[in-house]
Amino acid sequence: MNNPILVEVLRSTLVESRHRGAIAVADADGGTVLAIGDVTTPIFPRSAVKALQALPLVETGAADAYGFGDEELALACASHSGELGHVAGVMHMLSKAGLDASALRCGAHWPMAQSAVAALARTGEPSALHNNCSGKHAGFLCVACAKGIDHADYWRPQHPVQREVRAVLENLTGAVLGDDRCAIDGCSVPTWAIPLQNLAYAFAKFATGRGLAPERARAAARLRAACAQKPWHVAGTGRFCTEIMQLFGARVFVKTGAEGVYCGALPEQGFGIAIKCDDGAGRAAQAIMAVIIARFLPLSDAERAALERFVHPTLRNWNGFEIGALRVTAAI
Amino acid sequence: MNNPILVEVLRSTLVESRHRGAIAVADADGGTVLAIGDVTTPIFPRSAVKALQALPLVETGAADAYGFGDEELALACASHSGELGHVAGVMHMLSKAGLDASALRCGAHWPMAQSAVAALARTGEPSALHNNCSGKHAGFLCVACAKGIDHADYWRPQHPVQREVRAVLENLTGAVLGDDRCAIDGCSVPTWAIPLQNLAYAFAKFATGRGLAPERARAAARLRAACAQKPWHVAGTGRFCTEIMQLFGARVFVKTGAEGVYCGALPEQGFGIAIKCDDGAGRAAQAIMAVIIARFLPLSDAERAALERFVHPTLRNWNGFEIGALRVTAAI
Repeated sequence: MNNPILVEVLRSTLVESRHRGAIAVADADGGTVLAIGDVTTPIFPRSAVKALQALPLVETGAADAYGFGDEELALACASHSGELGHVAGVMHMLSKAGLDASALRCGAHWPMAQSAVAALARTGEPSALHNNCSGKHAGFLCVACAKGIDHADYWRPQHPVQREVRAVLENLTGAVLGDDRCAIDGCSVPTWAIPLQNLAYAFAKFATGRGLAPERARAAARLRAACAQKPWHVAGTGRFCTEIMQLFGARVFVKTGAEGVYCGALPEQGFGIAIKCDDGAGRAAQAIMAVIIARFLPLSDAERAALERFVHPTLRNWNGFEIGALRVTAAI
Repeated sequence: MNNPILVEVLRSTLVESRHRGAIAVADADGGTVLAIGDVTTPIFPRSAVKALQALPLVETGAADAYGFGDEELALACASHSGELGHVAGVMHMLSKAGLDASALRCGAHWPMAQSAVAALARTGEPSALHNNCSGKHAGFLCVACAKGIDHADYWRPQHPVQREVRAVLENLTGAVLGDDRCAIDGCSVPTWAIPLQNLAYAFAKFATGRGLAPERARAAARLRAACAQKPWHVAGTGRFCTEIMQLFGARVFVKTGAEGVYCGALPEQGFGIAIKCDDGAGRAAQAIMAVIIARFLPLSDAERAALERFVHPTLRNWNGFEIGALRVTAAI
């Protein structure tokens, strides 16, 4: 595998670091819109597919049973920063299913947001609620409870909830997710390796509903609408996913995943997007996503100007001096 | 530039991410001991050369004038974690020169150590003292004060202290550091791009004193001894630089730099080491350094066993489950 250099990190005018990767953009018929680098070798999408993992929450009727609105559905799709509103929202989701934080099996970590770390440290220690995946886990628990299934092992690959999630992923991606493709994610649920071209195809279907059963298409539309309405709940203050969806509303869906993954959808164009940086660099995957949006989404001058700082990010040091920049290469 | 893949990141048994890079090991005569990948293109060594930047502190007599011992000298070479002892040590250095934290121009950031973040958040906000480079900056200030030079602009490239640092780097590396090689570091002092082979050569001279003026050779030996005696002051609790030097004492000097750089020295072998990961990944540079140490340093069975977790790092998730590993490739 020899993916091209997609992003260069400049310090002054010299290239300090470089990131390789691959990009797939597809339509809902499986047609290739763009393919750069290796889009056929399975990669772990990690949290970038949380919106697909959340489909059963809507499809099974669990979301309706518990009266969930946009905030709860956005949290189920989120890698949140552990800010107060995120934590409160997840507690609310759990309470609707008659549960509390002790049911979560995602593990605890300090919030992603430094400000949230500082705020939390003044009063306590992080719990599983602060885990960036706690909304997804609350969603899994709600599916189990609404269906009357024992929820204790909801995170294990053989639990009915995870089996259903795997079936949804196979349905959308068209990939066969055998045990040889399965690993354990940071939050302990299964993660399946899937080629970028299949992930892009899945997000084109998620974006349009094409090729999906009516129930699933409706669930996809509802999750997209929830994220567009409540983008802060999908990530948090100052985060790329939040700011992009605040900027473009329902016209763009984007979701980050660990180890340099980004997935996204452009519903009006009918395109799904999947990006993986070889080295796991989120900074590069994010810049690539911004460039892909700029390339395929018709933009007003104001939108183009607002997107500029993501397309051409400047790097500043601890004194706020501009010391360099990220530069997407001609390979894209 | 097409450096080889040096480290693979495994999730379960599949490769999730991969890191390319280059390695130079040299002796003090400039002889090449090992060269993998591109060792001739200049790279920014960043904090990996702090021990070289600290040479004027000893050579000028400033360290003696202020009565500095191993702790202060180790802090001058440090990228510290901002733990209480680091902050107190830097305050002590500044006070000896009649200064306080207001003289520092490195900028403030929250400590690297999550535990230090939490501790600090309970009582205040970060200052420049918590910047991982504050010991280096205190050293620069002490040089200026001991020489009776105005210290206000000590961080600027044209200040006598930074001009002296550049001359020291040119002397040790044998590279000509023109303005076209100069950029601004995270802490606002100049950083000069230098080829890996020259950095390895510099650290071989630092390790042995060979080819250095007697005064400079003595200063190098004193800084190495200080770091070997006080490795916690060079980094902090649980950090690679600290743990490696705790394990091997004066037999190994290692120092991390931002964007995937590691420099080091094996004094008994007379070797200097310089590593750069193309993508800036510290996790990969660290594993490579562990493998290089294991390759060139004669190890007892106990030492080999202690080094094992750095040579073959396992990856654990938020629940502590072993979910993967780093694997150094056959290219090394």
